[in-house]
Amino acid sequence: MSETSADVIVVGAGCAGLKAAQEVHESGLSVIVLEADDRVGGRLKRREVGGRVADLGGQWVGSRHTVLRDQAKALGIETYQQYASGKTVLELLGKLTAFSGDTPKMPLLGLLELARLQARWDKDMSTVPADAPWSAPRAAEWDAQTLETWIARNLHTASGRAFARLVPRGAWAVEASQVSYLWFLDALRSGEGLAHLMAVKDGILDAKFKGGMHQIAEGTARLLGERVVLGAPVRTIVQDEVGVRVVTDKGDFAARRVIVAIPPGPAARIQYAPHLPAARDGLGQRVAMGAVIKVVVVYATPFWRAAGFTGQVATDNDVVGIVMEDATDDGAALLAFIEGPRALEMSAAGPEVRRDRVIASLVRFFGPAAANPIGYADNDWTRETWTHGYVGTMGPGVMTRYGHALREPCGRIHWASTETSTEWAGYIEGALRSGLRAAKEVVQAHNR
Amino acid sequence: MSETSADVIVVGAGCAGLKAAQEVHESGLSVIVLEADDRVGGRLKRREVGGRVADLGGQWVGSRHTVLRDQAKALGIETYQQYASGKTVLELLGKLTAFSGDTPKMPLLGLLELARLQARWDKDMSTVPADAPWSAPRAAEWDAQTLETWIARNLHTASGRAFARLVPRGAWAVEASQVSYLWFLDALRSGEGLAHLMAVKDGILDAKFKGGMHQIAEGTARLLGERVVLGAPVRTIVQDEVGVRVVTDKGDFAARRVIVAIPPGPAARIQYAPHLPAARDGLGQRVAMGAVIKVVVVYATPFWRAAGFTGQVATDNDVVGIVMEDATDDGAALLAFIEGPRALEMSAAGPEVRRDRVIASLVRFFGPAAANPIGYADNDWTRETWTHGYVGTMGPGVMTRYGHALREPCGRIHWASTETSTEWAGYIEGALRSGLRAAKEVVQAHNR
Repeated sequence: MSETSADVIVVGAGCAGLKAAQEVHESGLSVIVLEADDRVGGRLKRREVGGRVADLGGQWVGSRHTVLRDQAKALGIETYQQYASGKTVLELLGKLTAFSGDTPKMPLLGLLELARLQARWDKDMSTVPADAPWSAPRAAEWDAQTLETWIARNLHTASGRAFARLVPRGAWAVEASQVSYLWFLDALRSGEGLAHLMAVKDGILDAKFKGGMHQIAEGTARLLGERVVLGAPVRTIVQDEVGVRVVTDKGDFAARRVIVAIPPGPAARIQYAPHLPAARDGLGQRVAMGAVIKVVVVYATPFWRAAGFTGQVATDNDVVGIVMEDATDDGAALLAFIEGPRALEMSAAGPEVRRDRVIASLVRFFGPAAANPIGYADNDWTRETWTHGYVGTMGPGVMTRYGHALREPCGRIHWASTETSTEWAGYIEGALRSGLRAAKEVVQAHNR
Repeated sequence: MSETSADVIVVGAGCAGLKAAQEVHESGLSVIVLEADDRVGGRLKRREVGGRVADLGGQWVGSRHTVLRDQAKALGIETYQQYASGKTVLELLGKLTAFSGDTPKMPLLGLLELARLQARWDKDMSTVPADAPWSAPRAAEWDAQTLETWIARNLHTASGRAFARLVPRGAWAVEASQVSYLWFLDALRSGEGLAHLMAVKDGILDAKFKGGMHQIAEGTARLLGERVVLGAPVRTIVQDEVGVRVVTDKGDFAARRVIVAIPPGPAARIQYAPHLPAARDGLGQRVAMGAVIKVVVVYATPFWRAAGFTGQVATDNDVVGIVMEDATDDGAALLAFIEGPRALEMSAAGPEVRRDRVIASLVRFFGPAAANPIGYADNDWTRETWTHGYVGTMGPGVMTRYGHALREPCGRIHWASTETSTEWAGYIEGALRSGLRAAKEVVQAHNR
């Protein structure tokens, strides 16, 4: 067997592809991973900023992210808890407040509506089957409307509506007007509901990795060694009755089966021969990546902690939508997320304007000490050559008509990526799980 | 100048690209057209069926399609009127009726609602500016909801709602639940409103071309001769301060500027270096092609005419959504359109099942004489390698955030395709107009 052929080819060296390849390899089959970029990691990315290593992509590990925690343990990567003591900043409808504990400062009617909102979403999402959200009893109705339509119809206070609009923006970098209510419910379900999705302790923001989350990808890639080929963008995948031929800028590769482990949109930029089934081709045209720029601002000390802040912000009135913090023995950083339409704006404005705007915002939230960072870096994921954004999202009418094509193999082509996971879609946990599932598919097919 | 460089490169030999190239050439600049397929025409396509030449793609010329009529005249292609005498078949909510003249057979309340619907759409669309639909006074509200939400909220009879749902399906092969109300209004406006879009005489179905509409593309390509290069899929477009390099399967081509004359979705499958601006990249992820299969069934005689039918059908209860007819000295044909979800279903079912289902439907509409065709052909546009569907459509939240990127040049890259036209977007008339507009841009830039 030459180095340009294997039992299985994996396209994409993000966490989905790397975990799939590891699993295929451990099952005894040969595997080659083809990565377009000159680095592994996909939506995980390392950068040194202000003398410390930062994650410019995914960073948090949730309390229930069991596969990710196991992978970290196997690679010898330790976690540490997300800091959460003090006041959190919430800005809604132009009103800036800071609150401790779980209850935001809002008018009583707004708070009552938040409780009602959560109960309603919990109830609706509980009727959405994980393996087939398109078959929910009210799927047709929910998929024919935007989340914004649902909000306008079902919430009656301005603060309740403003809060609800923060949720898709903060979690998936997309506006309520852009997504289907059915897709949104399924995404909530996949993340175990609103309360869990927003929680720090015992929630999805529970912990981080010492040395950075990008090490998950790097460590897994190390296990695979020379089986990972960098700088090999896949242009065409040809399949026939016996196998696949994968055409890249670094030559052709052959295998029995291929796992395409990149999001549905980027996957659609590959040419397939024969043409993909209409539903799969149409899916690729309809799963758009949320728009996000992640910003890391490094300071000499975590001054916000001393001032009684958690370092967390959620706002609907700033170029930044969400702020989190990170501090270790190496130093301290505020992490800001520019999302949705603001990401388009700030992508066009360029890095200098962005830096000034973000630091001004941090000063507004945490005081003048924020004006003097010792390091700054950001990553505009909308312009990331091979990723094109944050995570795949669906507008109305997509889940019910094209959703079934997310995981359905097309002949010898299998699909991974966090978007295809029934649990934790959009998270690294979902990416790893999708890789395991796709690897199982090809190993089973091989043994048949 | 070698044959692999020119002042201007045009990507795509559909009507937009060919017209752009003709205009650039006539302005005195050199031009090369790079076409991925082994034929010109894009969404126009010739096929011989049952002894006559058929259009498997675009076919009709509207009464107000002035650029298309001029192009045909210059190429010596004649028109003939669409036949429209007799009864038209309308099937709504399981009820099959046949009516003569302009007024469908419907309950009185339904008819009143249709009149109200048309008045309301006419009024709403009149507030949508052609060159910037995203700046309509109610753009944010209209773009945050699906057309289906609008229908459910504003129409109160079952037949009115069923009729309204036929409109996006028949005109753009997309469901009301999939598109933004703002996009829909702009599409209506671009086609001069509902009445004009549905009309035969003096409407968009006014006439056809003797010998077929595909001749428009073939004739224009002939004017360009060897400047049109077939079988040259463009993989990458690299630009710098002085020019562009276009990487294809047939080698590299160089020019000062490039016109990408394919729809936004297919255009996003090309890699751009440097990366496109976030808004343009995001647009490419969010303009999905409607799903359509066009079927041509040839008969010895136009038996439906003798039986008193126009040959036209609109139904919400059949695998076929729309039927039209065509008869000349060469023979007669019924033309059936399978649209939206039914196109996905029938694409998966395969050609034999499709043929049986469509002919059974034609028998249901026009009697047993329809059971004995002398020729059959169909074209599954969802699986057309380089086109991926019918015409670009937008879900909610796209027009207001990404719409401005439709026509905005990105450095030395200019954009054509019917989707980019402010008038007759989705029609060949729009394609030609977009080509003229893009050609003007590059010629002006060249002369600066």
